[in-house]
Amino acid sequence: MTEDSSKHGQTGYQQIKPYKKDADYSYTLGAFPTYELIKARPEQATKVIMHSSFTDMEALNALCSRHNIPAAVDDKLISRLSDKENCYTAGIFAKYECKLSNDLPHIVLVNPGNMGNLGTILRTAVGFGIYDVAVILPAADIYNPKTIRASMGAFFRLRFHQYASFSDYCREYPEHEIYTFMLDGERSLSLKDSPGSGLFSLVFGNEATGLDASYKNIGTSIYIPQTEDVDSLNLTIAVGIAAYVFTNQ
Amino acid sequence: MTEDSSKHGQTGYQQIKPYKKDADYSYTLGAFPTYELIKARPEQATKVIMHSSFTDMEALNALCSRHNIPAAVDDKLISRLSDKENCYTAGIFAKYECKLSNDLPHIVLVNPGNMGNLGTILRTAVGFGIYDVAVILPAADIYNPKTIRASMGAFFRLRFHQYASFSDYCREYPEHEIYTFMLDGERSLSLKDSPGSGLFSLVFGNEATGLDASYKNIGTSIYIPQTEDVDSLNLTIAVGIAAYVFTNQ
Repeated sequence: MTEDSSKHGQTGYQQIKPYKKDADYSYTLGAFPTYELIKARPEQATKVIMHSSFTDMEALNALCSRHNIPAAVDDKLISRLSDKENCYTAGIFAKYECKLSNDLPHIVLVNPGNMGNLGTILRTAVGFGIYDVAVILPAADIYNPKTIRASMGAFFRLRFHQYASFSDYCREYPEHEIYTFMLDGERSLSLKDSPGSGLFSLVFGNEATGLDASYKNIGTSIYIPQTEDVDSLNLTIAVGIAAYVFTNQ
Repeated sequence: MTEDSSKHGQTGYQQIKPYKKDADYSYTLGAFPTYELIKARPEQATKVIMHSSFTDMEALNALCSRHNIPAAVDDKLISRLSDKENCYTAGIFAKYECKLSNDLPHIVLVNPGNMGNLGTILRTAVGFGIYDVAVILPAADIYNPKTIRASMGAFFRLRFHQYASFSDYCREYPEHEIYTFMLDGERSLSLKDSPGSGLFSLVFGNEATGLDASYKNIGTSIYIPQTEDVDSLNLTIAVGIAAYVFTNQ
């Protein structure tokens, strides 16, 4: 075993354990999100672990060394951290929060329940150039390796902040035009819904329950037209369509 | 044990087993898809199983009896069929295929690899009023209970057909205008892409590899504009956005 040489003692090599929600570190699983961590947030990365059969070891070692991030081969640790067979690298990072931008559009997720959905939404937001995401608690754990993996590392490309309530969020960003997405929204989503200012917040509820009726009194409520042959669209699809429409005016 | 009283001897009570790809039957898990099976395809349903603690037993029994579908309480069978704790009903159905409509739009999935994605796409297609889905083999199993569950039963609302190759599909529907969705497509998706005829096929590739270069020579290739900070959009999101745009002209 090599000595612990991580930047942060508390997230050091000896102590790296399968993810726990109250730990002050988390990790990426797989090469793509690990590269995203190093490229977008190198200052948060405390260690990179590789499997001895990882084929891109030289390039990853070079990248780590350029950013002064300790890297090590440790098959046992990889298999302890990942429940998938085909995981060859992991990147440990210290948890962090961000301040959202005041003058860019936001996506606001009220109580998202599923880590896979949350990660997919982060990836989609970044794909459409929305780099600020607010999460209203309680919510799926945004730091969980499953969320990070589902985001394909887009987690590291954006600013996110968790709020105890939607009104806490609103107080901080009074200039943003609020659009709430609800099955019984007052307006149908169309390309004509272009917000004048370009400064908007797209607000979505939980997968099972959506936004409660109180959100109809906040901003403009919008529904995505759909047939009666489905209960509703999947949350990630609804966010994807809304983000596409609002960013492609 | 009650006597086997299903309509099809080979999918009868005694023999119901956890799903196998080569079986001639499959099943829904959970109340919502089971109701969808009975409402949309009652002639395919051969048996409905309920857990003794299912709270909606009376209504489901009445519906089954109206459609002459045998129903039984069988906790052990439910738990054998489902790997989730909170599954209270299952509906066995005989596998079937459909002929796609000649004069309605299609979604064509080339080698979709993930059952959850496939089911989510079926749900989204139905949500946007596209009731015809072609699947080019090899592909994730469209009959697998995981696919059915992810579709929230939308599987039963649409027509689907599996083809050995894309050219087999094209030969059968020469009138459809082909739109292939590719990261390097020649045209950007916009509301101006309205196909003249309304008779279109939206074609999508596999999650990992997309459509290969040969698809650029077929019909019109389209890309969904996205930032360089993501590798690509999730397949289900891409299909959702394309279906929304093409059905909301």
